[in-house]
Amino acid sequence: MTAANAARRLEGPSKDRPAPALVEAGFAWEIADAPLLHHGLNLADMAHVLDLRHRKVIPERAAAGLLGVLLETHRTRPEDFPYDAAYGEPYNSRERHFVERIGDDAGWLHAGRPRREAARVALRIVLRRLTAELGVAAGEFAATTSRTAARNREVFMPDQTYLQQAQPSTFGHYLLGFVPPALRDGERLMSALGQINTSPGGAGCVNGSRLLDDRRVIADLLGFDDVITHTRDAMWQTDTFVDVLATSVSLLSNQSKLAEDLEIWSSQEFDYVDLAGPYTRASVLMPQKRNPYALSIVRGGGGVLIGRLTGFLAVVKSPSARSDNLIFAYGEIPKALEFATRITVLMDGVVDTLTVNEERMWQRLQEGYTQATDLAEFVMMRCEVDYRAAYLIVGEVVRHASQRGVRGVDITPVDLDLAASSVIGRPLGLDAEEVSAVLDPRSIVATRTALGGAAPAAVAEMTETYLAKAEALSSRARDELQKYAAAEARLLAEAEEVAAAGGAS
Amino acid sequence: MTAANAARRLEGPSKDRPAPALVEAGFAWEIADAPLLHHGLNLADMAHVLDLRHRKVIPERAAAGLLGVLLETHRTRPEDFPYDAAYGEPYNSRERHFVERIGDDAGWLHAGRPRREAARVALRIVLRRLTAELGVAAGEFAATTSRTAARNREVFMPDQTYLQQAQPSTFGHYLLGFVPPALRDGERLMSALGQINTSPGGAGCVNGSRLLDDRRVIADLLGFDDVITHTRDAMWQTDTFVDVLATSVSLLSNQSKLAEDLEIWSSQEFDYVDLAGPYTRASVLMPQKRNPYALSIVRGGGGVLIGRLTGFLAVVKSPSARSDNLIFAYGEIPKALEFATRITVLMDGVVDTLTVNEERMWQRLQEGYTQATDLAEFVMMRCEVDYRAAYLIVGEVVRHASQRGVRGVDITPVDLDLAASSVIGRPLGLDAEEVSAVLDPRSIVATRTALGGAAPAAVAEMTETYLAKAEALSSRARDELQKYAAAEARLLAEAEEVAAAGGAS
Amino acid sequence: MTAANAARRLEGPSKDRPAPALVEAGFAWEIADAPLLHHGLNLADMAHVLDLRHRKVIPERAAAGLLGVLLETHRTRPEDFPYDAAYGEPYNSRERHFVERIGDDAGWLHAGRPRREAARVALRIVLRRLTAELGVAAGEFAATTSRTAARNREVFMPDQTYLQQAQPSTFGHYLLGFVPPALRDGERLMSALGQINTSPGGAGCVNGSRLLDDRRVIADLLGFDDVITHTRDAMWQTDTFVDVLATSVSLLSNQSKLAEDLEIWSSQEFDYVDLAGPYTRASVLMPQKRNPYALSIVRGGGGVLIGRLTGFLAVVKSPSARSDNLIFAYGEIPKALEFATRITVLMDGVVDTLTVNEERMWQRLQEGYTQATDLAEFVMMRCEVDYRAAYLIVGEVVRHASQRGVRGVDITPVDLDLAASSVIGRPLGLDAEEVSAVLDPRSIVATRTALGGAAPAAVAEMTETYLAKAEALSSRARDELQKYAAAEARLLAEAEEVAAAGGAS
Amino acid sequence: MTAANAARRLEGPSKDRPAPALVEAGFAWEIADAPLLHHGLNLADMAHVLDLRHRKVIPERAAAGLLGVLLETHRTRPEDFPYDAAYGEPYNSRERHFVERIGDDAGWLHAGRPRREAARVALRIVLRRLTAELGVAAGEFAATTSRTAARNREVFMPDQTYLQQAQPSTFGHYLLGFVPPALRDGERLMSALGQINTSPGGAGCVNGSRLLDDRRVIADLLGFDDVITHTRDAMWQTDTFVDVLATSVSLLSNQSKLAEDLEIWSSQEFDYVDLAGPYTRASVLMPQKRNPYALSIVRGGGGVLIGRLTGFLAVVKSPSARSDNLIFAYGEIPKALEFATRITVLMDGVVDTLTVNEERMWQRLQEGYTQATDLAEFVMMRCEVDYRAAYLIVGEVVRHASQRGVRGVDITPVDLDLAASSVIGRPLGLDAEEVSAVLDPRSIVATRTALGGAAPAAVAEMTETYLAKAEALSSRARDELQKYAAAEARLLAEAEEVAAAGGAS
Repeated sequence: MTAANAARRLEGPSKDRPAPALVEAGFAWEIADAPLLHHGLNLADMAHVLDLRHRKVIPERAAAGLLGVLLETHRTRPEDFPYDAAYGEPYNSRERHFVERIGDDAGWLHAGRPRREAARVALRIVLRRLTAELGVAAGEFAATTSRTAARNREVFMPDQTYLQQAQPSTFGHYLLGFVPPALRDGERLMSALGQINTSPGGAGCVNGSRLLDDRRVIADLLGFDDVITHTRDAMWQTDTFVDVLATSVSLLSNQSKLAEDLEIWSSQEFDYVDLAGPYTRASVLMPQKRNPYALSIVRGGGGVLIGRLTGFLAVVKSPSARSDNLIFAYGEIPKALEFATRITVLMDGVVDTLTVNEERMWQRLQEGYTQATDLAEFVMMRCEVDYRAAYLIVGEVVRHASQRGVRGVDITPVDLDLAASSVIGRPLGLDAEEVSAVLDPRSIVATRTALGGAAPAAVAEMTETYLAKAEALSSRARDELQKYAAAEARLLAEAEEVAAAGGAS
Repeated sequence: MTAANAARRLEGPSKDRPAPALVEAGFAWEIADAPLLHHGLNLADMAHVLDLRHRKVIPERAAAGLLGVLLETHRTRPEDFPYDAAYGEPYNSRERHFVERIGDDAGWLHAGRPRREAARVALRIVLRRLTAELGVAAGEFAATTSRTAARNREVFMPDQTYLQQAQPSTFGHYLLGFVPPALRDGERLMSALGQINTSPGGAGCVNGSRLLDDRRVIADLLGFDDVITHTRDAMWQTDTFVDVLATSVSLLSNQSKLAEDLEIWSSQEFDYVDLAGPYTRASVLMPQKRNPYALSIVRGGGGVLIGRLTGFLAVVKSPSARSDNLIFAYGEIPKALEFATRITVLMDGVVDTLTVNEERMWQRLQEGYTQATDLAEFVMMRCEVDYRAAYLIVGEVVRHASQRGVRGVDITPVDLDLAASSVIGRPLGLDAEEVSAVLDPRSIVATRTALGGAAPAAVAEMTETYLAKAEALSSRARDELQKYAAAEARLLAEAEEVAAAGGAS
Repeated sequence: MTAANAARRLEGPSKDRPAPALVEAGFAWEIADAPLLHHGLNLADMAHVLDLRHRKVIPERAAAGLLGVLLETHRTRPEDFPYDAAYGEPYNSRERHFVERIGDDAGWLHAGRPRREAARVALRIVLRRLTAELGVAAGEFAATTSRTAARNREVFMPDQTYLQQAQPSTFGHYLLGFVPPALRDGERLMSALGQINTSPGGAGCVNGSRLLDDRRVIADLLGFDDVITHTRDAMWQTDTFVDVLATSVSLLSNQSKLAEDLEIWSSQEFDYVDLAGPYTRASVLMPQKRNPYALSIVRGGGGVLIGRLTGFLAVVKSPSARSDNLIFAYGEIPKALEFATRITVLMDGVVDTLTVNEERMWQRLQEGYTQATDLAEFVMMRCEVDYRAAYLIVGEVVRHASQRGVRGVDITPVDLDLAASSVIGRPLGLDAEEVSAVLDPRSIVATRTALGGAAPAAVAEMTETYLAKAEALSSRARDELQKYAAAEARLLAEAEEVAAAGGAS
Repeated sequence: MTAANAARRLEGPSKDRPAPALVEAGFAWEIADAPLLHHGLNLADMAHVLDLRHRKVIPERAAAGLLGVLLETHRTRPEDFPYDAAYGEPYNSRERHFVERIGDDAGWLHAGRPRREAARVALRIVLRRLTAELGVAAGEFAATTSRTAARNREVFMPDQTYLQQAQPSTFGHYLLGFVPPALRDGERLMSALGQINTSPGGAGCVNGSRLLDDRRVIADLLGFDDVITHTRDAMWQTDTFVDVLATSVSLLSNQSKLAEDLEIWSSQEFDYVDLAGPYTRASVLMPQKRNPYALSIVRGGGGVLIGRLTGFLAVVKSPSARSDNLIFAYGEIPKALEFATRITVLMDGVVDTLTVNEERMWQRLQEGYTQATDLAEFVMMRCEVDYRAAYLIVGEVVRHASQRGVRGVDITPVDLDLAASSVIGRPLGLDAEEVSAVLDPRSIVATRTALGGAAPAAVAEMTETYLAKAEALSSRARDELQKYAAAEARLLAEAEEVAAAGGAS
């Protein structure tokens, strides 16, 4: 760049007011996230002031003054704080307000730290709480579902694939199937939390700062578990946020499946389950309606979150160190996590209060042909025919039975002989009592004793294991929340002390 | 279903209060959209009352009373109306409020119409405005960009592919390339608008209504262009919303490309362009910074909208006639369109006020080798060698020139002969003056006179055409806005009249 | 750039072989698309040669030779052509092969055209066919669905919202609701086709070409409707592809809803419909199973396509004039459209051959309470109570009836009086015969005569309109296909002629 | 279900041939995945036969015969096996072929296992390999990047935010920032691998199987680390696949940022870096071009994978136990992981062979104003003014310097005094030598010694840590691959033994 050229390019901040279009499209978007970041920004600022003071970068008077106004801000609800897009994003409004309150001393706040560092810290402070809360909710959903499954482990039903009756099972076994995915996603959340609760503090702009040589100090002040080493990584990493968001989507995906099953099963035609009144909504037109509104919310919410994840991934498809990378995360990710928690709590309530129509399920099981596999296996073992042949024989039996309106439980050795003659050219000559025993849905379920099977004892055993894991998950997540609360309380106390000492001088 | 079974399944609305978890996850989500739907719900309700009155379904007193309270609501800002998630979604809060204000007469409002119809109408009323506004903005962006292109049609620059210098062109030609996509998306918006501004009114729940036999009436009252014929289609269609959302994403995608180009070109290293001060943002840490913040907003906003589209598509991946289908659209789609408009207006401002560094572009063009293609074509035509051979010769010339620090404009017949001898085994014997003429970037651009090319006259011709289309687009979109405003004013006037007459009796 | 610096930066093509990792990640990906682009690349190359010949840029001998080898390539199946990632993307393999076949004359092919132009032309040639084919399929699906609806317009059923019985309707009315979205998306496809079938030919790299000054020639040779004016737009536009892809997703979204409904309705518990055998799949384990596999394919395919659209949108979120912009579209978009067509044809078959269980639907209708709205409207009109009060009365009636196992059709004036007394403090005194008439589901449907309603006559009228539109859509799409075929035949004939003349000399 | 109704609904497999539309849309899609699943299906089938034999369910003759044909199939390349969509998905083709080869004995294969179990096992067998291979590649990319960073830790450059020069740094520090995200995603892959490599075997259809009561056996035969307990979870879980796919997307997202940076920096205008020849591609039109094609592939591939993740999430937004849930995963997820590996290997090669233009970077650093922050901090500390004031003074200095074409390194105390007088009303009186020292970019970098900073020693320390982690990651992933290979070899040996014994009898 020659001097001639350089002369034409002005460096340094513009003195112009932001364009109204910039305020409306950019600053207004960021200001809308201020309520989410308010608490974290306050803590980030206080910790930064304490760190600067510790390092003797900042005069005592300024430290005390800044902490005073920051504590005041901490006591102010975000909606009562003068956040105003006309002056930029939240940090700008804060800067303005602090100068108004304490004059030039407010200018020390910016030493050694770009605005983005404050926001990055604030984002992690809100995310650690929301992630832990989602962990609590995931654990509680898993626990409630385990308990409801346990209560229903002898409620027999025709389990389905393709929504076609498949094999005899129990509602308890069915329902319990939603627990292990929830536990795995819960574990993933806790693992993500370990990454989220690390400190970007002291990273400077991109290359570190000369002023603050021990990045551990600010991490400790804010209750972070560790420091994010590389300063560019500290400022710009996105993988951690992708991880927690993808896990939230996965967690809802599991609930969405359950919600859609329950919606189908609560139709008049199925009449297998019924949502408790508080989870339904009346029509304003149709007086007979009692709509399972909660399930619509769960499924729709799951869909919305898929979009939030995709949107974030599209946003971060950018070069490195671009602001859009995370500006659009400040609101999107916290709101997504919070919504995921609300939905999980809702689904927990739905499962907890669900009415299960045991008689109807049993009636359907009796009417159908879900014994066909066990019958074919019996034929295979007893008659020494290969499974494919046994399958074809039983398929023929079922076809005829269904044509004649004969139920599965009423199939006889005669039916089998007739089919066998046509399929393998000979009758089977089975014993009527034995065949009848094989056809009993309850007995079939009782054979599923292997690991993970539908036999009530197998379900009971799984339930116990899952319940313990679920409770441990919620408990660990709650411990994290307490840890953060304690750290934040300590920080506030330290800030109060310095502010008070300064005020006293 | 036998009586025995039926007895166990309770039909009819639940008398329980909604569960807190349902309020927080479901109703609170819907209530958050109330400010967006408020205006449309008021109009929908008024038109419905007028239709019921016209049909003599509803007593005159109730009609007047309802219209009175609806007009009052119309004059109330949504944030001042008692929308409260504790009582359900927005319609429930309205119902509650109307009963409080006028007692049982409020109950006539629900005749012949489910709540979803009111919301569907309201959604279309807000969407037609937002779509037309986006159409206006798209047209203005296209017009501004055309004008800026026209101003720069003789600003020469090395155009690029892969961000590698490719061929000599002009900044005007480059910039004008963003206009036709904007115009096409603008046309798609107008076409979508024709579908959006149709009336779902009178569809009943799914099968029509016995009370209101002319669906044209309510369509006219609300200023809709047409009636959506099939009642299920009227209530549940999603293709129209996918269309308008996908087009908005596409519109931003085009701007995002431009934004990213400009971000690169406004680096100190390129120094091709400079954003006007009002579109930049200062750092709070780095005193030399003048960040092109507007461009981050455009690109990030484009990414966010990809997620909104995906999320909507995931939500509507459901069975038919499920509430989640559109509940999650009420807020998501209007907010997405409004954000698209804000971003388009922002990008319009960026383009309008952009500083273009003509000298730097020319300098870069002079220094590079963007003449290579024209030189190879010249060799091919003049020396009767195939293009591949000419290409190899010129490739060799450029390789050597770049090694020696010789600029493209300084390549000589001797260089060509040297390369030709090694590639095709003979020199070319070209005339120095002719070669020099071929190498002049300005002359090269001047040859691009065919349709759509970079020659200043070709750019001028395109600009004229595009500008006319852009202005026509904005103008048609503005006409639509006026048409809606006029229809809404007529409806309010009619409501006022009936309310006043009722009040007088 | 000073000479010193320029000396260090080598310009001109690299002489190194591509890295194996580049072959595997890049060229192999592109080569995988060769079978899709083969036909279009052949046509693009032939037209380019004819254009160059017309312009006398290329010697007659070279033109004839090139056309000869191109015609030979046209007769070669892509899997038999030596496409090989080791040499680059498809164009490179072609270049290699042509040189092997006709020597240096092959080098004339590259005059005035970058490889990307050939690929862009080829993409549009494949897309116009696939888009038109999808248009045909959309029209046929709409026609078949209309006809099936017509056959079922007196098959009464309880239509549903939230999968809860809502109001009496017919299967015909229900099914017909899927037609107008298909027609609208079909129209959008035809409109997109108008944009797709335009010529990027003659655009040069970015700024046009000096060699070919009439871009109309190549457009005509290839059967394009128009020329894409701006050369950068011609090379890099993505909005047209977003449009056609988004519309395909929307088209499948509609079918996915229908598929999911039918899956639910073909459960043993609903037993409303049954898929024809050729659309089902057997289990290999469970002999009684007859799985509605076709519906899984439709829904899953719809989901996959959402991802294809999102992926394309994420890819094109890049700066302008970057190759990734469309390299990843060459295969992704044609495959997506082709899959959409296959699914649409499948769904057409499902609907065409569906067995509808009229008796079961009627039985369910008789057992439920879908008359409740009409009963409340009757109470409102006859007894002059507001709708809310009527709704509460009927809600109470339904609640009691369902507790006692009394069906909706068996509700009596006594039931109503009892409920009315508790709700509004007085009995209604309605006539038993009138009440009974109101409760008859068939009569209720008969009242839905307004536009778009469920009354058989209204359905018949809609069916006629939709069927005409559906047939017109398929017919227009077929006309397009014939137009392309004719243009391609003309181009081949012209190429044959020139090649033959050359061969004769 | 009454007999009357049941009579109309036929149960049991259809005897019809599949509809051509079903073959084309469904079976053809599944058959396209056969090459991916072939190996895993063979292993799954062999292990199942051995398990049945162990359990004495299956005659010795059938076991030997089946294992014989399965081993033969194992030795057959998938493209040579008669997979044919006309007969259904891959399992059906296998079934057909086995019957052709060994007759009815083939029928024993289906005992106690649905086809889906075979496919689920096969999917996990292919995914565990692909996930471990991606883990290897991630580790290698991280190691290569660490080493390249180490080589460049004293290559000074102006690091950027918003692509605006921000602060002095080194190319090594910059580049090293891409390592920790890769390491974290690598760890996530290994953690996902622990879930992927668990056995769904023995799950029966939904409720378990009566035939195989120890699910550990098949898990051990196949080298799975554990059994997935709940049988429904074993068959239908999707969270594990979401996890591995989301992590792959995240891994590419990081590389995409680097690729886009390098694309920008390898422009003629920046000229900071240059890709090695084997990672570039020539133009066929423009002889001077040397396009960084590899970077387009990395970025585009990252975009494509976002769509694959979204598509999978949309597909699994379905009720539970629906086939579409995973049918569409069989091909999509393996192909996505394999593509992610190819891209990661490509990016590894790009980084490894990159030319860094040290002089140009230094020249740019000298020309700019990246010292501004350090200068302001110096003013703050030395002159005891708050940072905001120091910032304003330096901002003014930079503005004037850039207007006059004075470089940052040439700023003098006089410039500072002038600005200070206007901003804070007094000069600063700083020492010229001290100011000059503060302005030296190398000295500034040297101050960034805190954890994660740009000082060469800090970079060296980080590099060592990261390199160790990277190597450990690749090594663990390679160990996994060996473990799988060993288990598969043992299984084949056992199968050979049984087959040989049977053949001998």
